[in-house]
Amino acid sequence: MADYAVIMAGGAGTRFWPASREARPKQLLPLAGGAGESLLAATVKRLAPLVPPERIYVVTAERLAEATIAALPDVPPAQILREPAPRNTAPCIAWATEVLLARDPDAVVAVLPSDHHIADEPSFRAVLERAYATAREGACTTVGIVPTRAETGFGYIELGDARGPHARAVARFVEKPDRARAEGYVAGGKHLWNAGMFFFRADVMRGLLATHLPAMAESTRAMVARGTAEAVAEVFPTLQSVSIDVGVMEQAKDLAVVPGSFGWSDVGSWQSAWELGAQDAAGNVLPAGAFTVDAARNYFANLGSGRAKHVAFVGVSDLVVVETDDAVLVVPRERAQDVKLVVEALKSAGRKDLL
Amino acid sequence: MADYAVIMAGGAGTRFWPASREARPKQLLPLAGGAGESLLAATVKRLAPLVPPERIYVVTAERLAEATIAALPDVPPAQILREPAPRNTAPCIAWATEVLLARDPDAVVAVLPSDHHIADEPSFRAVLERAYATAREGACTTVGIVPTRAETGFGYIELGDARGPHARAVARFVEKPDRARAEGYVAGGKHLWNAGMFFFRADVMRGLLATHLPAMAESTRAMVARGTAEAVAEVFPTLQSVSIDVGVMEQAKDLAVVPGSFGWSDVGSWQSAWELGAQDAAGNVLPAGAFTVDAARNYFANLGSGRAKHVAFVGVSDLVVVETDDAVLVVPRERAQDVKLVVEALKSAGRKDLL
Repeated sequence: MADYAVIMAGGAGTRFWPASREARPKQLLPLAGGAGESLLAATVKRLAPLVPPERIYVVTAERLAEATIAALPDVPPAQILREPAPRNTAPCIAWATEVLLARDPDAVVAVLPSDHHIADEPSFRAVLERAYATAREGACTTVGIVPTRAETGFGYIELGDARGPHARAVARFVEKPDRARAEGYVAGGKHLWNAGMFFFRADVMRGLLATHLPAMAESTRAMVARGTAEAVAEVFPTLQSVSIDVGVMEQAKDLAVVPGSFGWSDVGSWQSAWELGAQDAAGNVLPAGAFTVDAARNYFANLGSGRAKHVAFVGVSDLVVVETDDAVLVVPRERAQDVKLVVEALKSAGRKDLL
Repeated sequence: MADYAVIMAGGAGTRFWPASREARPKQLLPLAGGAGESLLAATVKRLAPLVPPERIYVVTAERLAEATIAALPDVPPAQILREPAPRNTAPCIAWATEVLLARDPDAVVAVLPSDHHIADEPSFRAVLERAYATAREGACTTVGIVPTRAETGFGYIELGDARGPHARAVARFVEKPDRARAEGYVAGGKHLWNAGMFFFRADVMRGLLATHLPAMAESTRAMVARGTAEAVAEVFPTLQSVSIDVGVMEQAKDLAVVPGSFGWSDVGSWQSAWELGAQDAAGNVLPAGAFTVDAARNYFANLGSGRAKHVAFVGVSDLVVVETDDAVLVVPRERAQDVKLVVEALKSAGRKDLL
């Protein structure tokens, strides 16, 4: 029973404008320091000691395929699955499940996001090993992050009884809570953040899909049996657009969760990029050699194609300045979420060149 | 008696870093709106109805000669005088005076800065006509700007008795005053800003130089008589480095001043560039099409070689952001003068590439 990973890398992502664009979404950006390494490349790299690239699959959009292949030179290009149309997560997991079963009927699979950051990689891999082990026993398994703050932007997983040596049963999935409930969750110790990581035996997932999404299960099986790009182009766009959470997980009975604590971040905004960056003594995340006077907790990134820039921040604090070849954003860190206002305005104005 | 102009364009200027560099000083920058026109080009253009380019001379540094010629396609290149070394203003005025006397013994000359902005050009030319007329009668003449605020950064001219139909005698030149004295000057109505504009008959200036700076007068006369670039290279660097104010004006007896009020700005900092820019309803000076939310009184300029950038300012006010191909400056408008701290740091670090 070999372990495999399927990395979900089809996201669009507008929260990192002007850096994130349709042709260069968040997972392809170097948002967590690390010498310009993209979040996607970092995801593959941190898996490698446990799951080598030969056993890693990546699901992405057709239009992102070339960039994704370029970002992951060690992953065999045939293992980059190209969605001809976005259909949410259930269809692409169903597809990957059939692809893996064709390769290895005993495959144990981790489905992982491509655009998160993990500070403590050894702990992360230890949690993954427990999750693979739990899934190997037959349970659909998720990883829950021990919350470090009363976050209202994430879904939560409520812990049930102990289930095997490393896991608990999932009592239920909880939608994004309000502030008061989120505070209760952190204090109570019975709720974990849902980080969108799923582990299962491929044959178990095939069974769950056949039960809960039978049309999808049948179609993807036939599509993979045909084994051609034409089959994917014909069949995939006809699949029901539904998330794996709604379509399968919330219907399934036997769900396990492995708690983890490994410096996880969903890298949700420029604020996160600042938190994850290499801060100087005043908390600035600026290019090497930057000049500062009375400047604290600022963030600057130049994702243009030109050479590095000498940066001078004088008398400003808590500011985000990001530029590309064709755009510049200036916003206080605490308003980093308002980037969406810019993106909405560009959409309204039909500025496809800037999206 | 034809009117000529000599434009002083040898300045270095560090107050507009990162835009201003040794190879591209302030006068070559488009700092006052006007579709990318440099301050120098604007200076020539506003003179043209009164003094055509054929009668305009420009004194600049040897290293800036090519850029200066490129900026002024209408000025005959032979009229761009190239200083082999910086010697302050008296030597270059002495040189230009001899050059003009060789062309026209009756020349009346205006010496003008190259890096100021004038909002009301018709009024400016009307004042210039009065100053030329006054100079034609024999007096060394300056233009004094009616002060609009208690500025401590300028020298002042104290008005004396009436002198001809348009002018007053200069009672004395006053160094930069303290705040209290500056307020007194504005209230008193007897003091004008010294804007560094001088008008004189060339033969009169030759006489003043012979009296007050006889060695310089003699050397420049011989240098121009030789008429070669070699002569300039040999002689000019040997001339005494002294300003025309100290060397001649403050010694001369018969000085006139013509008061003027024509929207003058010395364009002293990014703050000035913001004041002179095309402001939107919220006081922002940003590129066309910029996106703003809760953003007021900001200034952005991109002096890089690439295409125009789409600019988004969200939730920030009173900020200056300026970028070039190799540098970015972020500073509150009210601290625009602190750019000098950046330049000093770059000098200390030996970063000639950024100066």
